[in-house]
Amino acid sequence: MTDIAQANRVFYYLEDLRVGQRFRSGTHALDAAQIKTFARQFDPQPFHLNEGEARDTLFTGLAASGWHTAAITMRLMVDGGVPLAGGIIGAGGEISWPKPTRPGDILHVESEIVDVTPSRSRPDRGMVTVRSETLNQRGDTVQVLTAKLIVPRRPVV
Amino acid sequence: MTDIAQANRVFYYLEDLRVGQRFRSGTHALDAAQIKTFARQFDPQPFHLNEGEARDTLFTGLAASGWHTAAITMRLMVDGGVPLAGGIIGAGGEISWPKPTRPGDILHVESEIVDVTPSRSRPDRGMVTVRSETLNQRGDTVQVLTAKLIVPRRPVV
Repeated sequence: MTDIAQANRVFYYLEDLRVGQRFRSGTHALDAAQIKTFARQFDPQPFHLNEGEARDTLFTGLAASGWHTAAITMRLMVDGGVPLAGGIIGAGGEISWPKPTRPGDILHVESEIVDVTPSRSRPDRGMVTVRSETLNQRGDTVQVLTAKLIVPRRPVV
Repeated sequence: MTDIAQANRVFYYLEDLRVGQRFRSGTHALDAAQIKTFARQFDPQPFHLNEGEARDTLFTGLAASGWHTAAITMRLMVDGGVPLAGGIIGAGGEISWPKPTRPGDILHVESEIVDVTPSRSRPDRGMVTVRSETLNQRGDTVQVLTAKLIVPRRPVV
């Protein structure tokens, strides 16, 4: 898709961003071992830990913790998926998980700038709203994150 | 506080939940090593990895990734902080990080039921909205999560 900038070493300051701009991350291949390792530490529930027990739950099989999907999404964004000067600094946002993330999924993130608001009180920065969909290799959306990010203006030299 | 149920082995079904009910989790002690380990895997940005480099950023010192705070919050909820029958199964929600989480913070989660809506199409479950504040040992709120959770009704025996 020509309207999606591939990850590269160009970083965007506040004044470089426009509503409708899109970015695409690299990929992350998820397996059952990663799902269980994250779950043992942060979300030890049967549907994230054990294939057999997961089968009889709402998930009908092993699924990643939503917070694991969120963490992988962040890594893909930081690794060039959303190339912001100053890094990815979130104040908060909305998150949803329309479908489970499964062992064998190959995830990537497609992001779109949906709002750019310069700060009134801080002339060196602004707030940018980014809608990021995390998709698997079949094109299913497994997470939608609409995040408010703090983005610096280009420094005056 | 007498209106906050301490974590125990009582699990709540949909019909046991009322708007205004409150729950309090156990605690988690965070240190710099945990912050850096999580960041190396999921959020490798200087303000989560290196005290010296963090000093010159917006965070003015080492801070945990917001997704690390979210993951710790989930663990505290799963470990009895929000004792729901069927576990903590989130469809999505809103999240914000009003203050950074720091090395040395001792975190706990205070949750309040803010909505209980039985499903129209699925008589065996409902959607419960829970507002969970993650606080440090000084009483500062470091995360607010308003999550929509799927909660089963008590099975008919």
